[in-house]
Amino acid sequence: MDMMEFMKEHKALVEDTLREFFRRKKEGLDHPLIRDAVESIEEYTLRGGKRIRAILMILGYRLFGGAGNEIIKAASSLELVQSYFLIHDDIMDESELRRGEETLHVKYAGIARGKIRDPDRFGENVAIIAGDLANTYAIEMFNSTDFPLDRKNEALMELLRIMEFTGYGQLIDVYSSILDDFGEQELLLLHEYKTANYTIYGPLALGAILAGGNPDVFRDFAIPIGIAFQLQDDILGLFGTEERIGKPVTSDLAEGKKTLLIIKALEMGNEKDRQIILDALGNPSVTREQLEQVRNIVVSTGSLDYSRNLAAKLVQRGKEHLTSLNFPGGEEYRNILLDLADYMIKRTM
Amino acid sequence: MDMMEFMKEHKALVEDTLREFFRRKKEGLDHPLIRDAVESIEEYTLRGGKRIRAILMILGYRLFGGAGNEIIKAASSLELVQSYFLIHDDIMDESELRRGEETLHVKYAGIARGKIRDPDRFGENVAIIAGDLANTYAIEMFNSTDFPLDRKNEALMELLRIMEFTGYGQLIDVYSSILDDFGEQELLLLHEYKTANYTIYGPLALGAILAGGNPDVFRDFAIPIGIAFQLQDDILGLFGTEERIGKPVTSDLAEGKKTLLIIKALEMGNEKDRQIILDALGNPSVTREQLEQVRNIVVSTGSLDYSRNLAAKLVQRGKEHLTSLNFPGGEEYRNILLDLADYMIKRTM
Repeated sequence: MDMMEFMKEHKALVEDTLREFFRRKKEGLDHPLIRDAVESIEEYTLRGGKRIRAILMILGYRLFGGAGNEIIKAASSLELVQSYFLIHDDIMDESELRRGEETLHVKYAGIARGKIRDPDRFGENVAIIAGDLANTYAIEMFNSTDFPLDRKNEALMELLRIMEFTGYGQLIDVYSSILDDFGEQELLLLHEYKTANYTIYGPLALGAILAGGNPDVFRDFAIPIGIAFQLQDDILGLFGTEERIGKPVTSDLAEGKKTLLIIKALEMGNEKDRQIILDALGNPSVTREQLEQVRNIVVSTGSLDYSRNLAAKLVQRGKEHLTSLNFPGGEEYRNILLDLADYMIKRTM
Repeated sequence: MDMMEFMKEHKALVEDTLREFFRRKKEGLDHPLIRDAVESIEEYTLRGGKRIRAILMILGYRLFGGAGNEIIKAASSLELVQSYFLIHDDIMDESELRRGEETLHVKYAGIARGKIRDPDRFGENVAIIAGDLANTYAIEMFNSTDFPLDRKNEALMELLRIMEFTGYGQLIDVYSSILDDFGEQELLLLHEYKTANYTIYGPLALGAILAGGNPDVFRDFAIPIGIAFQLQDDILGLFGTEERIGKPVTSDLAEGKKTLLIIKALEMGNEKDRQIILDALGNPSVTREQLEQVRNIVVSTGSLDYSRNLAAKLVQRGKEHLTSLNFPGGEEYRNILLDLADYMIKRTM
């Protein structure tokens, strides 16, 4: 099976599993407000996405010779973890759109508009609770799988470690807006915690543990690939189209996101360049014209090339490491994982 | 051992266990911002409280003959669950004080003041993450206990069920402000989910499961006692002193909390009474004078008596049920639990 087939097939399996989880969840819940909230979490979770984390967990499991389909359910729980993080992220970033549709806090603020003094507060409150519920559902789904109890216990501890460090990454991200000295080193730590650990290493490690394998072998592949993926994602965030990134093209600038592109352009640009960037960064009413100016500076200063070259170097290092390893599950899955790394870097999810 | 001794001794053990957890947690974390966040969660968790949930879990375990001290650690994790809910609650209610000190979102807004456009957003963001981390720590602590894996797995599923239904209770609570037809029935469901299930039944059930016992026997004791406890807590919220409740005496009114006291006073009062209550309810700048007027109406309409009588009836029903049961762990612990029920209703935590 090639990588695209593997992804397509498993994306469908994961989404079926999520639908089934929500179907059973709703069966036991009569109260209309509760059902409505559960349906919102379901709809949000099933809006799309490549299910990359779930697929990596399945690959980690197969690479260590893991058989059977219980891994699909364990892997699907990562998509609920993802909903939990994204729902709370949307609140923190004050995002209005997620995958082209209303974020949950915006949706619920709309429901309360005209009924109470502070509909935005209501919207955020429901969304905080919805994120919390998605978190609890994720652990429930993961823990209801039928693996040997000792492995499942070990994997759950790893899942909690991943969630913990993703929280730390999120924290550094939130602080980045008030830190004057937020530079390349701080940013790469953030990418390691929030992306490499959470999106690439963690899922592979969980699959390995559930198959009885050693998760550590994935580290020198997953961390560089994960950081490269985030660098690439930030490039897409600044240079992509609204259709491609699912939110306004000015979002990253408006949020004040200190990406490596921005950090290096500030470092390598002249005083006028710096001023243009600083005027746009964190400015909620930043214009398309300002965006164009920032894009030009990121290109002309060589900052775009810097990020691209760093990403390419990291990808090569990660792939070389993976190629040097042998897995009990065989070369087929290793090749899928190698192709998947290329795919992620080129397309970004 | 009598109830007060049991509580005092176990409160100290639980707090030592929490301190040890945070000591080890911080050992592995170098980053100053992350350490600071962990210290804030620790400080918040150790601000005080009777540790009633932890103590009930220990009692549930002892009642079913559970021996040894590993239960202390499992029980202490409920205090982290409590921090998770309270930190998020504080955001949702826009509370400034918790146990007489700054809530976390207020504390972090203060740190960002003057540094960014929207310090309140920053404060809320850090607090959302802090609550999320407390959630993850709670499951980690619970799952790192050394119980037989099958019992621990079953107990973890019950813990997740408790957290899920507490979330549903929270949801109904948040909705109560926009629902016109929020009445006694809705309120008692809210109390069942958010208080009886979470504060009384859940902890006892977890202790029972970890000792290999049947958690269901606690239901007809815990649910009525839990609802009574909440009714009593609402009385304290309206009639208590600032010192006693740890936040401004007008808080419940300002938040627009539709307690049974309020619902019944609206039902039983005349048009003028209703208007006075509706002017005060959900009014962020409600005065002490308005509070006094509302208190007088709650007394004169008989609403206070209604809540008190219902609470007393529920307590009696719960205690009678418990007295009819026999436990392998012996009568000593049952008597402590009976005394604890009285204590909770009289003092409120």
